Amino acid sequence: MIRIVLLGSGKIAKHLYAAFSAQPEITIVQCYNRKGTKLSHDQADESVTRDYTSLKEADIYVMAVSDDAIEEVSSHLLFNDRLVVHTSGSVPMQTIHSKHNRGVFYPLQTFSKTTSVDFKTIPVCIEAENNEDLILLKKLGSLLTNKVHVISSEQRNVLHVAAVFANNFTNHLFTIANEICCDNDIPFEILHPLIQETITKIIKISPKSAQTGPAIRNDVSTLKRHQQLLTDTTQREIYQTITKAIQSTYGKKL
Amino acid sequence: MIRIVLLGSGKIAKHLYAAFSAQPEITIVQCYNRKGTKLSHDQADESVTRDYTSLKEADIYVMAVSDDAIEEVSSHLLFNDRLVVHTSGSVPMQTIHSKHNRGVFYPLQTFSKTTSVDFKTIPVCIEAENNEDLILLKKLGSLLTNKVHVISSEQRNVLHVAAVFANNFTNHLFTIANEICCDNDIPFEILHPLIQETITKIIKISPKSAQTGPAIRNDVSTLKRHQQLLTDTTQREIYQTITKAIQSTYGKKL
Repeated sequence: MIRIVLLGSGKIAKHLYAAFSAQPEITIVQCYNRKGTKLSHDQADESVTRDYTSLKEADIYVMAVSDDAIEEVSSHLLFNDRLVVHTSGSVPMQTIHSKHNRGVFYPLQTFSKTTSVDFKTIPVCIEAENNEDLILLKKLGSLLTNKVHVISSEQRNVLHVAAVFANNFTNHLFTIANEICCDNDIPFEILHPLIQETITKIIKISPKSAQTGPAIRNDVSTLKRHQQLLTDTTQREIYQTITKAIQSTYGKKL
Repeated sequence: MIRIVLLGSGKIAKHLYAAFSAQPEITIVQCYNRKGTKLSHDQADESVTRDYTSLKEADIYVMAVSDDAIEEVSSHLLFNDRLVVHTSGSVPMQTIHSKHNRGVFYPLQTFSKTTSVDFKTIPVCIEAENNEDLILLKKLGSLLTNKVHVISSEQRNVLHVAAVFANNFTNHLFTIANEICCDNDIPFEILHPLIQETITKIIKISPKSAQTGPAIRNDVSTLKRHQQLLTDTTQREIYQTITKAIQSTYGKKL
């Protein structure tokens, strides 16, 4: 049995609450957040506290709080030498107060407030100061998913940048594609199968092998026509920047 | 029964050959390409020609040839007043020689040489000079897929730009994410579930509503740290350009 105290009340705290609760080998001893908010409607009132002094003993204290709050929350925890982890993709483990045995339990996924997720498909990146704690985090992760990766703070830092490219930035490109469709009375749904196939391809073969389009073909007349069509200067700037990047990656010049 | 002459020997010609052949209500009367290449190993030798003068009569001549060849191939067709269509996302219908009844039959998908596709999931954009031909193209499209859209040359032109953002450019961002992972001994597979969820979200809700990340949160310290981590100037330029675009879309400033 792994005993957890879960701190925080945001999206990740709620998703972790649901995932931990579903496992018979995990007990959520207590939850903490500033307002004493329950993380689920079926949670008992007395299992939530907003008082650091009443925190119970547990095997792992999981701080699912915002990046900026990690240092402060960890310093408010009154005990020493217990395993305290954060769940952030971009904050170094060392940000946690040094009186604790420090660790990281970072589920690499984009969470929604409303949609539930299947934790089995989510990679969890773990890190710990000492080996015993790493084994415990590995056990905790393995109860939720079969994708547990030991990732150092330095690796997690760059992984977060990679995730920004793969999720936030691609999402913005889809937003632009959506806008272009809307402005021309074309249903955006017409692009859904192409988008799904883009993903299927990069998962089957590498994205580098999957690259197609006018930039890699150096199809100068199409590139020129597209830029003339783009009246929005920001869209045109992105078009030019990524076209140039594709051509430099594959050794072609505009 | 719709009788087709299929011109070209590239990826789209082969995928269309497979899709048309599978339909009992479509007959591929003949194929034409410069080298007389068969489009499938089970195709009869005599059904392929490389001689324009021996082209047979058909209801639709489908030119699945490269964008640059459309004008020339259409002018080589010796007959007049028959329905001749191209399959391109970016070439105006008017590029086809004016002696023909012109049209477009554009399957909006990224095709691989090796992987077969389920045509049922692919949107087909059609256009024709006259209404009777449009009805015939609609019938042809409906035999392959339930996603047939009447799209004008102007709309198709901008749709192609949108597809470049949604497919080619996102693919390049995945390439960068892959490179960042490789350079830091992180398996790229760790990002696959995040990437799949990105797509699931934009299909469920709009990409604009799905936007997350340090740019939209205006998380200045993360944005700064990420840019310091990116030693590749092209990657940094893309990071800055898209971050700026996200912030201007959602009304925030760096």
